[in-house]
Amino acid sequence: MISIDDVKRRAQRDAKSRGIHLTPDEELLQDLIEGLKTNEERYGYPSCPCRMASGDLETDRDIICPCDYRDPDVAEYGCCYCSLYVDDEIHEGKKEARAIPERRPYDKQMAALGFAEKETEEEATGEMKESSRKLLYCRQCGYVVFRDTPPYVCPICQAKREMFEEIVTLSGHYTRKVG
Amino acid sequence: MISIDDVKRRAQRDAKSRGIHLTPDEELLQDLIEGLKTNEERYGYPSCPCRMASGDLETDRDIICPCDYRDPDVAEYGCCYCSLYVDDEIHEGKKEARAIPERRPYDKQMAALGFAEKETEEEATGEMKESSRKLLYCRQCGYVVFRDTPPYVCPICQAKREMFEEIVTLSGHYTRKVG
Amino acid sequence: MISIDDVKRRAQRDAKSRGIHLTPDEELLQDLIEGLKTNEERYGYPSCPCRMASGDLETDRDIICPCDYRDPDVAEYGCCYCSLYVDDEIHEGKKEARAIPERRPYDKQMAALGFAEKETEEEATGEMKESSRKLLYCRQCGYVVFRDTPPYVCPICQAKREMFEEIVTLSGHYTRKVG
Repeated sequence: MISIDDVKRRAQRDAKSRGIHLTPDEELLQDLIEGLKTNEERYGYPSCPCRMASGDLETDRDIICPCDYRDPDVAEYGCCYCSLYVDDEIHEGKKEARAIPERRPYDKQMAALGFAEKETEEEATGEMKESSRKLLYCRQCGYVVFRDTPPYVCPICQAKREMFEEIVTLSGHYTRKVG
Repeated sequence: MISIDDVKRRAQRDAKSRGIHLTPDEELLQDLIEGLKTNEERYGYPSCPCRMASGDLETDRDIICPCDYRDPDVAEYGCCYCSLYVDDEIHEGKKEARAIPERRPYDKQMAALGFAEKETEEEATGEMKESSRKLLYCRQCGYVVFRDTPPYVCPICQAKREMFEEIVTLSGHYTRKVG
Repeated sequence: MISIDDVKRRAQRDAKSRGIHLTPDEELLQDLIEGLKTNEERYGYPSCPCRMASGDLETDRDIICPCDYRDPDVAEYGCCYCSLYVDDEIHEGKKEARAIPERRPYDKQMAALGFAEKETEEEATGEMKESSRKLLYCRQCGYVVFRDTPPYVCPICQAKREMFEEIVTLSGHYTRKVG
């Protein structure tokens, strides 16, 4: 069983390691940390306390905290969707956190609510299920991820998602996919 | 030749980049940094100053500082096995660093002491030695590593090791291994 | 269109996340940030404001800021080639930033100036262009990158570039390349 303090410390370490902060609003902070703990106990992973999770990891993957949208939201608005993570200006009280638009794509929101296309029977029973994940790499620093879509920002060198490209194999050799 | 200052600065940068600290005990710090320097000169890599290294990189890999066990130990106990790395509370003197249990598996400890099973002759002479390393990815953020076992915590998104899964190729396509 | 403030904040977050700083010289800082913005608008990526870019991403990849040489230069000299990024000592005024040698290999500098060997016609027309990028991994922590040469320092565990080795596939299994 994970404790409130563990969840909070993990978030603090993560904020520090990214050069950002947790919200200075103590009450909000407590609520969000409790929400994360509840979700982690319910689903096995700390999904975003401000969004509806489905309970299916592949569906919820992008909203597990820190969610896929945190870094671009903090860069653009100074805070994440929940205002759990904030930038220097909001941390120092020079700016206020405000409601920001939901960056999560509409089809993912719908899927979380159960309005997604069902898997075909074949997919559901195949022993080796084909994944839509691909090996992608950042053309700037070479960072490799296995995801369906690139991250918004490269966590290693801060390059934009447009810098990511697929890696494919050609008779055992890796190469980059060209147009 | 690496200098004491270089080793110390590298450890400081690494602590900062993780949101943690070096021990506030100056004397202990000096001893540990000197131990790291000695090991780096002796083995070619800075293995843990508080553990017995074998001199074989594959055997010692998990105890090269920062060791595989640092992040889970700092998360659980507030400090690593050596107390070189500590969390906010210990850094600020609110809590004291104390001896913590050895998280390194027993078979790895024995291997470091030379009590491991020997390689078969075939393995030892094969031109292309099969590695037990696998391509693994974090199901949360997609981070990819080439290791025999997953890291305790994903260095990118802080997910637990249970989130890691193997990537396999299927006629040139990457897929995830299912059940 | 990216703003000056966005470029500056991105650099600040990146410095913090690495345990280093931006130059304390405000005038120099402003010049460098403006240079990065200009390059990002011109080339589509923020190449180093102190070096000649070619406009071809593969050629310029190593000098996109933060460049490949920043981390080893900050470790060895306390600042990067531009003095945009500095260490604690320079940040606190205990030491001054000074001109440092260019670590970028001579052939890359020449290529940026247009003195590189041309691609053969075959390479230029092949639908699937063979890349010189390889899957490489850090033997210490398992970090995987897709690059032609290893990074100077592993961004995850700070291991030296000599720790990187190629991953090859052998009938669908990944293995390490041995001698």
